[in-house]
Amino acid sequence: MSLMWSVKVVGLGVMALSLSLELLGWVFGRCRRRRTLNKVLFFPSKVSCVEHLFSQNSACSCFCPLPHGVETSFSCLLRHILSASSSLDLCVFSFSNMDLSRAVLLLHSKGVTIRVLSDKDYSAITGSQIGVLRKAGVCVRCDAGSVHMHHKFAVVDGRLLITGSLNWTLTAVQSNMENIIITEEAELVQPFIKEFNQIWALNDPALFYKR
Amino acid sequence: MSLMWSVKVVGLGVMALSLSLELLGWVFGRCRRRRTLNKVLFFPSKVSCVEHLFSQNSACSCFCPLPHGVETSFSCLLRHILSASSSLDLCVFSFSNMDLSRAVLLLHSKGVTIRVLSDKDYSAITGSQIGVLRKAGVCVRCDAGSVHMHHKFAVVDGRLLITGSLNWTLTAVQSNMENIIITEEAELVQPFIKEFNQIWALNDPALFYKR
Repeated sequence: MSLMWSVKVVGLGVMALSLSLELLGWVFGRCRRRRTLNKVLFFPSKVSCVEHLFSQNSACSCFCPLPHGVETSFSCLLRHILSASSSLDLCVFSFSNMDLSRAVLLLHSKGVTIRVLSDKDYSAITGSQIGVLRKAGVCVRCDAGSVHMHHKFAVVDGRLLITGSLNWTLTAVQSNMENIIITEEAELVQPFIKEFNQIWALNDPALFYKR
Repeated sequence: MSLMWSVKVVGLGVMALSLSLELLGWVFGRCRRRRTLNKVLFFPSKVSCVEHLFSQNSACSCFCPLPHGVETSFSCLLRHILSASSSLDLCVFSFSNMDLSRAVLLLHSKGVTIRVLSDKDYSAITGSQIGVLRKAGVCVRCDAGSVHMHHKFAVVDGRLLITGSLNWTLTAVQSNMENIIITEEAELVQPFIKEFNQIWALNDPALFYKR
């Protein structure tokens, strides 16, 4: 009888332990968030060859005189933009950087849904890539409602926010002191998506015909 | 005997339960991070009276014609800047906003350690507050090393980052489409602190005499 009771007590203890462990596992699973990307890039960026980022073949050989195989702020920015697989919403005051324009065109050719918002005045300056994108069939709207549409942000696949002081120009990338935040924090990404959709809707050309 | 064993089993069960609960509490405590501030502000901001933010007396009465008691993007920005209790590191391309200048001067008068970095060219334009701050005894350094020192960020008490597209001008606040992120995420704050210290050191006037 005493032995049977001892077996029962041990059995109960083991059961309590296994239940506790299971509960602990569940709690850990709930608490442990997937690691959220939070990155800061500073400019001016070192200049390096970024040809491999545009190539399907990661081991592409380029014979340009720039340093190869070097990760710079700009190559990192470009890599995150080129990571878009379904959509890219771009809201940028000044856009004249040829490599960034090439990245947008490459995504467009791959079927990624692109929407570009820019400032009306700055989209018309010499070297602006806004006209180039428009001609290639990218959806572009220019804001004329405010003094300046001074944003410089992009949302990749509705989950990754790229924002900061950096306009998409060569001077900004190679000569100025600038910063960019790349983040997946939903509390930061979601307001930018909402803002983009609002400005996009405000500048719907159909509205101008109705006015 | 049987009753005694039953009591022991129940006791053991209660003990196992209490231990499990204690363990659970500990695990929850470890997993639950203190809520990290992540906020986005968009501009242009509505215009409202911000006089109460400068007053010790929160119930100060102001008779200006602007709306009172309204929380706007600008009042929120101002509130976070004025929350500085030990230090404010400010790195801004263009600084001409009188209310923001007044906030910096108020913090300076309260003994908060202020360091201001600005762009050399833009610190000399009409309406710039850089000269005003310098005259008031605030530590100011102007960067002449890059084409433009185009950052627009501030770090409050070494823990709160305020950054975005917004220059500290009246046009930016009241007329442009702009954004600001206010965050305590260490992964975002720390690189900006490092960047500030680097630019600050690079523009140490003592270095110019040695050159």
